[in-house]
Amino acid sequence: MIILGVDPGLTRCGVGVIEAGHSRRLSFLHVDVVRTGPETPQDARLLKIFNGLGAKLDEFAPDVVSIERVFAQENRNTVLGTAQAAGLAMVAAAQRGIPVALHTPTEAKLAVTGDGKANKSQVQKMVTKILSLNTIVNPPDAADALALAICHALRPAGAIEGGEREQHLTPAQKQWADAQRLARPGRGVRRDM
Amino acid sequence: MIILGVDPGLTRCGVGVIEAGHSRRLSFLHVDVVRTGPETPQDARLLKIFNGLGAKLDEFAPDVVSIERVFAQENRNTVLGTAQAAGLAMVAAAQRGIPVALHTPTEAKLAVTGDGKANKSQVQKMVTKILSLNTIVNPPDAADALALAICHALRPAGAIEGGEREQHLTPAQKQWADAQRLARPGRGVRRDM
Repeated sequence: MIILGVDPGLTRCGVGVIEAGHSRRLSFLHVDVVRTGPETPQDARLLKIFNGLGAKLDEFAPDVVSIERVFAQENRNTVLGTAQAAGLAMVAAAQRGIPVALHTPTEAKLAVTGDGKANKSQVQKMVTKILSLNTIVNPPDAADALALAICHALRPAGAIEGGEREQHLTPAQKQWADAQRLARPGRGVRRDM
Repeated sequence: MIILGVDPGLTRCGVGVIEAGHSRRLSFLHVDVVRTGPETPQDARLLKIFNGLGAKLDEFAPDVVSIERVFAQENRNTVLGTAQAAGLAMVAAAQRGIPVALHTPTEAKLAVTGDGKANKSQVQKMVTKILSLNTIVNPPDAADALALAICHALRPAGAIEGGEREQHLTPAQKQWADAQRLARPGRGVRRDM
């Protein structure tokens, strides 16, 4: 299964692609950052991100796109651009009939470091290790995009459907499952927004 | 000049089209609301809005698209969906090479009612009057979209470039010019978001 992760942003939009094989074996395929400058009009910036993401989807034909879930409580200076980039990623995927999964930053951090509050550098280090890369993934937006893809690949099955299987989760998986439950529609983010 | 106004929203996205002729004569061309339900996945909702707006742009081939400027301070439950719909409107316009203008709700209200704090029903009433329509424009999202188009058509020239011409503005136009200045990039909304 090919998973394309998107760390949405107006200035730097990270894109990371991995392949998830048997026994949760993960292989690195691609990483890139779509960049736009504040000197460019907003409509041109958004179009560049939309086209950039579309080109990656066409190139890698992922089975699923894993996008960071954006919360209204985030940094007021960047939250609208982040939400817009996330929206464009969703539309680019939907246009191609590719399913979309949303994961919170906490889930992504937990998945790669075991700590939902890990800092950027810890995420970069662990993403590099998990994917057996020779050099640290940089910038953090690129590592975050790969972390979102890894997060989707390694998500505990029990965390999705809830119920009995969660009893067998490790403490980190349990914490992650709790984070996922909290992020579900109806909790924190209303669906009719 | 044909102007297409967009009142962005995830549940109801208003679209209003007018023609602005000589001597600020305005004619009504079209009004509609693209609707999506909270039971639909977010990617499918955004795609429906994107396709709906694209179809209107192809049908009316406007010279400019006037979109409501979204602020991070707005209602937390709806601001992300609103920002995403506005982003999609910008991309749909940019894909077609149509210029985009952003206007604040205050500017739009001032333009049609002379009061930047007018309520929904006052905006509906005045839009209906300005465009010589026989029945009240409904829902408010439809009226807001037309108000954004009217706002762009009637914008005081002095308010755009600033400077000398503003001295000859009426008090309402002056108030509007001030509102525009406050809404400019670098004031209240950072461009690198």
